[in-house]
Amino acid sequence: MIRIGFIVFPNIMQLDLTGPYEVLAQAPDAELHLVWKDTAPLRASSGLMLQPTTRFADCPQLDIICVPGGGGMNALLTDAETLAFLRKQAEKARYVTSVCTGALVLGAAGLLKGRRAATHWMSMEFLPAFGAIPVEERVVVDGNVITGGGVTAGIDFGLRVVAEIAGEETARAIQLGIEYDPHPPFDSGHPRCASPTLLETVTTKATARQQARRKQVEAAAAALATRG
Amino acid sequence: MIRIGFIVFPNIMQLDLTGPYEVLAQAPDAELHLVWKDTAPLRASSGLMLQPTTRFADCPQLDIICVPGGGGMNALLTDAETLAFLRKQAEKARYVTSVCTGALVLGAAGLLKGRRAATHWMSMEFLPAFGAIPVEERVVVDGNVITGGGVTAGIDFGLRVVAEIAGEETARAIQLGIEYDPHPPFDSGHPRCASPTLLETVTTKATARQQARRKQVEAAAAALATRG
Repeated sequence: MIRIGFIVFPNIMQLDLTGPYEVLAQAPDAELHLVWKDTAPLRASSGLMLQPTTRFADCPQLDIICVPGGGGMNALLTDAETLAFLRKQAEKARYVTSVCTGALVLGAAGLLKGRRAATHWMSMEFLPAFGAIPVEERVVVDGNVITGGGVTAGIDFGLRVVAEIAGEETARAIQLGIEYDPHPPFDSGHPRCASPTLLETVTTKATARQQARRKQVEAAAAALATRG
Repeated sequence: MIRIGFIVFPNIMQLDLTGPYEVLAQAPDAELHLVWKDTAPLRASSGLMLQPTTRFADCPQLDIICVPGGGGMNALLTDAETLAFLRKQAEKARYVTSVCTGALVLGAAGLLKGRRAATHWMSMEFLPAFGAIPVEERVVVDGNVITGGGVTAGIDFGLRVVAEIAGEETARAIQLGIEYDPHPPFDSGHPRCASPTLLETVTTKATARQQARRKQVEAAAAALATRG
């Protein structure tokens, strides 16, 4: 049996979680947990309600710990309880992982020092504050740390993790089952291919959140430096 | 304001829902509903709990009705209450839509007669029983009927629907935000590219469900013929 726990939190980007969840739930003998401080239902940024299954305090040792991202992640960067939980689990976990901006939370917990890592394209610039090396890839494997890029990269991430724990044929079978043969109707999924106008529209709309994120990253990096 | 309702049901494939949900929730002035017979929490096939927001009986007229798929869809094919709800909503909805095997439920409700439609590759063979024309594309638009292929096609589907209701630039902005620039680690997402061995493994594993589905499709098609 392999125990997989996703951190869930208010204002999470639910697809960061639900994409890899669908993939990993199909791995042989997987036991999935949605872990948070308590088990009251949580509201994702899109309005979808999520139900935590396991409290930090009750969570068994996980084989794979995964932190998804989303706007609500900003608060986690300086949340001592969440960071302590991650550090404790990471000591014995087989894999320490994230999707999207969840990577910054791993960073704030001190788990990305010297590691190559992916995150959402808009937050790549924050990785070095935690000693991580930003890599513009969809999924980055560095030892036992596996990080996915933004949101939908969580599906690619999930398949990669299944290949690690259960072999490539199992991952391929899951891929066929979820018909992951993507054909985006447009080609604007990354700054590399988006028009300058579109890129400006999207980054401008996110200005307030990114400014708040920068402050949180600075505070988290300072706290991490104090820990040594 | 645009009202979008997803049917939810026990044993749903949650990614059929959560992929397009994340995309459509970001459309301007979108109001999303998860609609079912009652509002008790539902268990998806992966174990994820989902919370319906709106009962059939209380549901306002929707602009877009969407039926996701998954194993639990078999029961819906002969569920009079669900089919009646879909028929009633479809009369005034701007778009009648589905993801994955949700297309078969639209078919059972009599909403795909003479329409080109997509569904999960493993269920394409069932579409003609409802007078639909199977099309092996990721997203198929036929008049006001928009159908997506299997599971992850729901993301492509969502972007296409946003382009219809809010324009292509809005869809492209959402695509950039969710970093939908897919790079599957393997190339086995469709029978066209999967190895014969893998294809056999996956179809063999699904035999019981597909046999049950065939019986349900036959019963639903017979009931539909009686309605004329």
